[in-house]
Amino acid sequence: MERNFLLTIEYDGSGYSGWQRQPDVRTAQGELEAVLSHVMGKSIQVNGTSRTDAGVHALGQQASFHGEFGIPTDRIQTAVNNLLAGKGGGYGKLGRVGDMRIVKVEEKPAEFHARFDSLGKRYRYIIGNGPDVDIFRRNYAYQITEPLDEAAMQEAALHIMGTHDFACFQAAGGNERETTVRTIYSLTVKRQGSDVVLEVTGDGFLYNMVRIITGTLVEVGLGKRKPEELAAVIESCDRRNAGHTAPAEGLYLVEVFYDEMQVQAAREEGRACADRR
Amino acid sequence: MERNFLLTIEYDGSGYSGWQRQPDVRTAQGELEAVLSHVMGKSIQVNGTSRTDAGVHALGQQASFHGEFGIPTDRIQTAVNNLLAGKGGGYGKLGRVGDMRIVKVEEKPAEFHARFDSLGKRYRYIIGNGPDVDIFRRNYAYQITEPLDEAAMQEAALHIMGTHDFACFQAAGGNERETTVRTIYSLTVKRQGSDVVLEVTGDGFLYNMVRIITGTLVEVGLGKRKPEELAAVIESCDRRNAGHTAPAEGLYLVEVFYDEMQVQAAREEGRACADRR
Repeated sequence: MERNFLLTIEYDGSGYSGWQRQPDVRTAQGELEAVLSHVMGKSIQVNGTSRTDAGVHALGQQASFHGEFGIPTDRIQTAVNNLLAGKGGGYGKLGRVGDMRIVKVEEKPAEFHARFDSLGKRYRYIIGNGPDVDIFRRNYAYQITEPLDEAAMQEAALHIMGTHDFACFQAAGGNERETTVRTIYSLTVKRQGSDVVLEVTGDGFLYNMVRIITGTLVEVGLGKRKPEELAAVIESCDRRNAGHTAPAEGLYLVEVFYDEMQVQAAREEGRACADRR
Repeated sequence: MERNFLLTIEYDGSGYSGWQRQPDVRTAQGELEAVLSHVMGKSIQVNGTSRTDAGVHALGQQASFHGEFGIPTDRIQTAVNNLLAGKGGGYGKLGRVGDMRIVKVEEKPAEFHARFDSLGKRYRYIIGNGPDVDIFRRNYAYQITEPLDEAAMQEAALHIMGTHDFACFQAAGGNERETTVRTIYSLTVKRQGSDVVLEVTGDGFLYNMVRIITGTLVEVGLGKRKPEELAAVIESCDRRNAGHTAPAEGLYLVEVFYDEMQVQAAREEGRACADRR
């Protein structure tokens, strides 16, 4: 009998040329498929929800695959993780840790598809904003030593929430025939210690959209743009009016929504944020 | 006029085959000398205090070099760091961060030597001890998911403090003609959130000594050895009686002591720790 599995995966993007399988380079999908194929005893191809770029991290990437397998669901996670622990780092037997890990395996109905059934996603962008750079975080945060005004960034973010044509936030290389209208449920900017952390949820994201939003908000935070400019930037539908593309290293795919409750919670988060204004 | 400079350096060891210059591999000393030579306009060789192994990190490595230079002391740090920021990672112009950085440059009397004048060192060893591994810390901590008894580890550590022949904690490959007697001023084991952190100060350390001490204390923390066994392990002077060598990834060279006050403070720390027993 055909079975359908949904995997929740985390990976450190610094060792990968992005998610998508490509010949001759190390990618997260390629690595996962190689190990899964070994464990399942036949060639496996997975469908991921998000084609993260080189250097982008995932805490909750989702990918599904199907086929006829005898293996119990709970055995897949352990077997795959044991093999992954030897990849991309790790140090000997005791305490060996790799750069990808399956967090959860669920069995789903035959018709379930990780990407088509997704109702939205949450991304996090971490900006290190202390007075000194931290070399140990160079692959894990965007480091800006000039102080950012996170209140101005949050003010600007309010213009981005809601349903808009976001062509201004799409990098060249995106699908040009597709609609550029998306709904952003929530976009919060919070200081956490010396970090400034953006959390954004939406029904979908254009190519490099979170990184261009972040770059634009950083320019607001540095006082180079006013928060109220954002309305005109969006209305212009012109990439040249938005800010720079923030580096891949600070970006994390946090979770994929399959449940309407998650979407409702994200909308609530957005409303609460607008109300505090 | 000949001038003598002392550099304080931090580096992320994950991209380096250790400190010491070697042909055809990327080492911290090799990288630093290449950049320094470029900035100073002549070939520079530095004397480092600690030959950290591959994967070991430094927050306060010290290295000195001398020669006739016209450059103001405070220009060296900026010029070298600007070049280092492009190495071993980094992401474009804004917020570029490399994997090595000069923290401080001091001009010293002609007779000062970074290694020979050192009075001791402080190392830190970080053990991740939460219920799950964290793939993002695979190069920065030794991850053990079974709970460690840090009180038992601290109890065992008290046997290590003081002046002993530490041959049992020396890996093969050390200098065999040298004395293996060393003085450990302090050795503390503390839980910090889900981490267990060892801090050890001493007048000098044998090859792999901190990693073998850590491996031995981990075995105590897991209940595989009793704290009081440590006295006999040290007395035996036999490496086979000590525990495993903990991985390089959790080890940080924190600082080098040049001042008798730092030694006194480390001794106080050790006494306070023994008194709390």
